[in-house]
Amino acid sequence: AVYGGRKMEDYGRFLALLVSALLVGFVSVIFSLVWVFHYREGLSWDGSAREFNWHPVLIITGFVFIQGIAIVVYRLPWTWNCSKLLMKFIHAGLNTIAMILAIVSTVAVFEFHNAKNIPNMYSLHSWIGLTAVIFYSLQLFLGFAVFLLPFAPVPLRAALMPIHVYSGLTIFATVIATALMGITEKLIFSLKNPAYSTSPPEATFVNCLGLLLVIFGALILWMASRPHWKRPSEENAKVLLPVGDTSEGTEAESTMTGGSNADKSELKISSEAARKQNVKLDEAGQRSTM
Amino acid sequence: AVYGGRKMEDYGRFLALLVSALLVGFVSVIFSLVWVFHYREGLSWDGSAREFNWHPVLIITGFVFIQGIAIVVYRLPWTWNCSKLLMKFIHAGLNTIAMILAIVSTVAVFEFHNAKNIPNMYSLHSWIGLTAVIFYSLQLFLGFAVFLLPFAPVPLRAALMPIHVYSGLTIFATVIATALMGITEKLIFSLKNPAYSTSPPEATFVNCLGLLLVIFGALILWMASRPHWKRPSEENAKVLLPVGDTSEGTEAESTMTGGSNADKSELKISSEAARKQNVKLDEAGQRSTM
Repeated sequence: AVYGGRKMEDYGRFLALLVSALLVGFVSVIFSLVWVFHYREGLSWDGSAREFNWHPVLIITGFVFIQGIAIVVYRLPWTWNCSKLLMKFIHAGLNTIAMILAIVSTVAVFEFHNAKNIPNMYSLHSWIGLTAVIFYSLQLFLGFAVFLLPFAPVPLRAALMPIHVYSGLTIFATVIATALMGITEKLIFSLKNPAYSTSPPEATFVNCLGLLLVIFGALILWMASRPHWKRPSEENAKVLLPVGDTSEGTEAESTMTGGSNADKSELKISSEAARKQNVKLDEAGQRSTM
Repeated sequence: AVYGGRKMEDYGRFLALLVSALLVGFVSVIFSLVWVFHYREGLSWDGSAREFNWHPVLIITGFVFIQGIAIVVYRLPWTWNCSKLLMKFIHAGLNTIAMILAIVSTVAVFEFHNAKNIPNMYSLHSWIGLTAVIFYSLQLFLGFAVFLLPFAPVPLRAALMPIHVYSGLTIFATVIATALMGITEKLIFSLKNPAYSTSPPEATFVNCLGLLLVIFGALILWMASRPHWKRPSEENAKVLLPVGDTSEGTEAESTMTGGSNADKSELKISSEAARKQNVKLDEAGQRSTM
């Protein structure tokens, strides 16, 4: 199938990975619900352990699953005919939902701690987790200001895009690492008789949830870092652009050096060579993801 | 300064990041030693808690610090004049040291558990940690067979290189996540009176060690994923190559499509255009890291 004027290489392989990621992410959410309803006290908002239980459910649903989907949303080939602006809104929207769920989930733990007189912010999990929520919010705010609002000039967008991509993937990986610490803490604290070390069914079940989170993260990172699965730049169909061209496509070719547009306009070669040159430049753009 | 026939862009910034990573990694190792000698029982090999203490020290020294350096070793500009083969030996050698330290460090925990009648392999930390050691060993073995031994054909090397890079970075991130789980476990188990939740000095100190590991990982991932800091391919200085050329350079341009060499030879353009074309191709190669 042809999408956005470009045939996607190994479309089937991309689809298989996407379905795997959706499946692993969905099963992780189900596992978190089984954990709190079958093995724990269920959910409510009353300062009890049932309020705490919102924490794993909302983190896995929002901060892991929805964030993961938000990361790869530009790579879905059937969206390549949609406007870049629409895709930006979907990317920002999903990340906003994830941020809200992460914040609510953090509030649940603070309220639970306060109701039970447990100190806040003493553990490595809490230090890194709160840092991740803050950086994630900053990333969302900066991304909105620079890439969605129409004020930032193209060179600024181009300069910040590799940082945006790197920060996004690093925060995502850190969130999964923090979830693994949280699972470790919770199993140690809540499994006393029988203890975690005797491997009761809950321990094995929730360890499997941890493994699923790692697999989900690995799938998303693979999909997000394959250069040939990148959304084609708007520049794709056009021939050589003049210096100072400010089409949105430039932004997508994020890690290209600032001098490459100037380079292009200097070329005085036949139109056939120019076409091939453009294909090469496009390929360079496709490979510039990280 | 000119290295390997190519002037490195923003050399100073690379150097600042490298020095930061070395510093953070070195301070992490010092922190692990202060932890076991000042706050814990020190080191020995006698089945006691002092044998366990080898675990954090060797993991942070080998599996985090040395692995991190092994990842970025190709990117040091002053090695670009060294032969690729020498650099491969250094990369493989550092990873072998890291693997040995990781295995010894795992044996220390098993012996400690057995001496104290603590079950093995019940925690999420142990599941993911052992998986990481196994995958790391496989990665090293496969990397040796494919990229160091002279038997693998160039197309196979080119096809496996992006997977090698992705696996390496994913395993590295997973190792750091596992270290954070290990720190969480150890602080909960060993801090009883005063408890972890009352934030005694050891808790705050070791939480800081955890933060240092995250910062080290983030620095290494940034350095490893900047396309313009990649070691230049051997092809760099040459002009258009014939189809079927099998120089080592091809391997470095790992994520380029199989058709690009054929594309190149088809071009019938002036030598000036060819030179510029080659610069573009080289740039594409530089950007193909992940």
